[in-house]
Amino acid sequence: MSAALDQTVASAVDALASLEALDARVDLLRGVADTLDEAAGTLVPVAERETGLGVARLTGEVGRTSFQLRLMADVVADGTVFDARIDHACATWPPAPRPDLRRASLAIGPVVVFAAGNFPFAFSVAGGDTASAWAAGCPVVLKAHPGHPELSRLVAELIRRVAAEIAPGALGLIESEEDGRGAVCHPEIRAGAFTGSLAGGRALFDLACARAEPIPFFAEMGSINPVFVTPAAAARRANEIAGGFADSFTLGCGQFCTKPGLVVVPESFDRQLLLDALANRSGGRLLTAGIAEAYARGLEALSRTDGAELLVAGTRDGLEFTPSLVLSSLAAVLEHPESLMSECFGPVSVVASYRQTDELLAFATQLEGQLTATIHAEEDDAELAGELVRRLSPKAGRVAFNGWPTGVAVTSAMQHGGPYPATTAPGTTSVGTAAVERFVRPVTFQDIPDALLPPPLQESNPWNIVRRVDGKLAEAKVVSA
Amino acid sequence: MSAALDQTVASAVDALASLEALDARVDLLRGVADTLDEAAGTLVPVAERETGLGVARLTGEVGRTSFQLRLMADVVADGTVFDARIDHACATWPPAPRPDLRRASLAIGPVVVFAAGNFPFAFSVAGGDTASAWAAGCPVVLKAHPGHPELSRLVAELIRRVAAEIAPGALGLIESEEDGRGAVCHPEIRAGAFTGSLAGGRALFDLACARAEPIPFFAEMGSINPVFVTPAAAARRANEIAGGFADSFTLGCGQFCTKPGLVVVPESFDRQLLLDALANRSGGRLLTAGIAEAYARGLEALSRTDGAELLVAGTRDGLEFTPSLVLSSLAAVLEHPESLMSECFGPVSVVASYRQTDELLAFATQLEGQLTATIHAEEDDAELAGELVRRLSPKAGRVAFNGWPTGVAVTSAMQHGGPYPATTAPGTTSVGTAAVERFVRPVTFQDIPDALLPPPLQESNPWNIVRRVDGKLAEAKVVSA
Repeated sequence: MSAALDQTVASAVDALASLEALDARVDLLRGVADTLDEAAGTLVPVAERETGLGVARLTGEVGRTSFQLRLMADVVADGTVFDARIDHACATWPPAPRPDLRRASLAIGPVVVFAAGNFPFAFSVAGGDTASAWAAGCPVVLKAHPGHPELSRLVAELIRRVAAEIAPGALGLIESEEDGRGAVCHPEIRAGAFTGSLAGGRALFDLACARAEPIPFFAEMGSINPVFVTPAAAARRANEIAGGFADSFTLGCGQFCTKPGLVVVPESFDRQLLLDALANRSGGRLLTAGIAEAYARGLEALSRTDGAELLVAGTRDGLEFTPSLVLSSLAAVLEHPESLMSECFGPVSVVASYRQTDELLAFATQLEGQLTATIHAEEDDAELAGELVRRLSPKAGRVAFNGWPTGVAVTSAMQHGGPYPATTAPGTTSVGTAAVERFVRPVTFQDIPDALLPPPLQESNPWNIVRRVDGKLAEAKVVSA
Repeated sequence: MSAALDQTVASAVDALASLEALDARVDLLRGVADTLDEAAGTLVPVAERETGLGVARLTGEVGRTSFQLRLMADVVADGTVFDARIDHACATWPPAPRPDLRRASLAIGPVVVFAAGNFPFAFSVAGGDTASAWAAGCPVVLKAHPGHPELSRLVAELIRRVAAEIAPGALGLIESEEDGRGAVCHPEIRAGAFTGSLAGGRALFDLACARAEPIPFFAEMGSINPVFVTPAAAARRANEIAGGFADSFTLGCGQFCTKPGLVVVPESFDRQLLLDALANRSGGRLLTAGIAEAYARGLEALSRTDGAELLVAGTRDGLEFTPSLVLSSLAAVLEHPESLMSECFGPVSVVASYRQTDELLAFATQLEGQLTATIHAEEDDAELAGELVRRLSPKAGRVAFNGWPTGVAVTSAMQHGGPYPATTAPGTTSVGTAAVERFVRPVTFQDIPDALLPPPLQESNPWNIVRRVDGKLAEAKVVSA
């Protein structure tokens, strides 16, 4: 373990006490949000140079990032994150004597976060995992993504300035793969979060589980995000579906974990509509040379798969690629899942045809875990659509209808997760307010004198937070500012 | 994998659909509770013959078990378990278009539960893990504990009768270690829960993590549950503390995971009080021959540890043991944690003395994860007590004050868990209503037509459950019965 890593973790440990306070967390989250918004003009050009994702997209992403930070500040401010429960003497077992029990969700401890390459703001240094860890009161050791090192350092420096007065060790930046693995294995690190590839996520998850003291490791590893088009939807909206599909899988040059990588359509679906939808699409730049090489290999594998045909063969110029499209059948997909159902990160997708809706339903049942599954249907085939919803909800973190999976809304009702291999922790989400639940650890205080309790559990409710008292939800007092 | 196990798991898979319904879960939980209460007169004698825990204790434990089942039925009935969230078009990112998002916690899938030996009712076939899995909608494959096989079969048969009309595969019983490991590795099993030893829990956790598709594995593996006695408490209440301590560590013949295995007292603490408290205590029977042998080996190791003295040497008669007590110093405990800080399941505890309160605080900081930590203090040393609360809350699932850790109340404010090695999942509890959270998986439904949504998310709220709608908690309608 490097001495630098050890120092970074030690600073994170030191920051734990400062981040116990509600105000400190709120100030940190809102302060970083404000600072990011102010610095967008400086940061976006650096991000554009390093990632090529485009100024418009990157500017929007800064807005999403500061929105996420402020949303997390809100669930700290109202006390949701503490999930405070006070049972004075409610019905319990044993019947008597009844202890005074108070339970609050406290910080799990310092967290290591592995930044994603495809969201240089929203899932990077000041991104969703960092925001939810801070909301939980956890300092973050942030492993920067090698795709945008300068941006990572700039954002870390901005955070350091905000954190200096609040909790200096709230964020520490590490950059090498070795330090990343070292952090996962560091005895003072109590949880990990990751967004990236299946191979990378699984390797780190295995490290976390094999520790002398295992720690929870929340890896979001992507999926193929299948889209199911019913016969009635294809009959009524084939053109619209072809267009929406082309928009969705080429968005961000196909570099979203929710990219629809497989669309299942009736055999009658007109391939010309797909060709038209992709005609004259300009290409985009992939994030890194490594991603470009992996993408080129994936395309090659797809084009050589029995029963698959490259309907549109995209062109390459360095890191720039125009979209590609593969045509196949559902039967071939089931026969060659190693290529046709494997995530190929970049602007390509597979259109697979089925003959009968039975095939469609059987396929839904056989799917492995997905971040999302999408259904296009019409009232005429509501029964089929209902059966698809039933079969897909055990398979995916989110089931969408007559839309596209890209574009993950940040709300309290969002679930961005799913069964393995979409994630390593199917009960959790990395987007939305529930993301904070990954980083808390509930503690019950039994008969502790009021003055010695943490503030969320003191009888007078000094932080004015929402609590569940004797089974009833007690909303916080509304205080005029 | 045995064909019988495969069949048991297949029945569990079949039961998933039936357990989707709120009514089915409530009927199952309340039905089993009623049946257990009715059958107590038949079951307790069998339990007594197999475990020797005593008729009074076992009768009380049936009451706890049916209480747990009914409490879980209540959190299903009011809809808490679904954690339903509906965002029609609330503030979100991206700003527009705003999708209709609805999120509910659904069953994670079939669960394997490893029964505990020390709670033949409350943490066995119809125990807390089974109740919380059912509340979440998960069928259970139950690995019986070898310490009470006949009782396990009787309870399983009672459950089968209740479940026959509701969800026939809601419980399947397996008995061999091989089937237990097979269930953890079975592709259709989606989570596991365990109560028992560190070695056993860790081995199963490792299996669960090493699967091709890893699953969450919630092992509760016990701890030494240290008790800290401050100088003022010792000065004022030494006699009461000695008595309470003797009661607590000998309760159930020392076979509780919350047994205080180490009490830290000032050097001045009068050892005669401990001798008096233990004088003429009758012994008790340990649960199994295996536990008795492990206990005898543990006692032997304790008595041979440098710096430790066997103040009271208990006697043995077959499986029957009278209590033993070890005297030591905090310095010796730190030097020989392999014996003095290792859980010794049975009626023994270690009393370790400190010279200065600095030692006490340093020890609190060095502790590994515990289910509980307890403080005995007085107003005179409130500052010391406050510092102990601060240092112990990151180490234990529950911090108790001027009481004893045995006796775990079953309420919404209970946390029975803790950092490793107390458990493998520090964010979860195995006692109290929050235990259900281990077995759910949230799913978001985006723009799904109302009729195709699962009932907890339909606009009309057909199950009349509590939900969070556009950020505001909407309590269920009160319906007169």
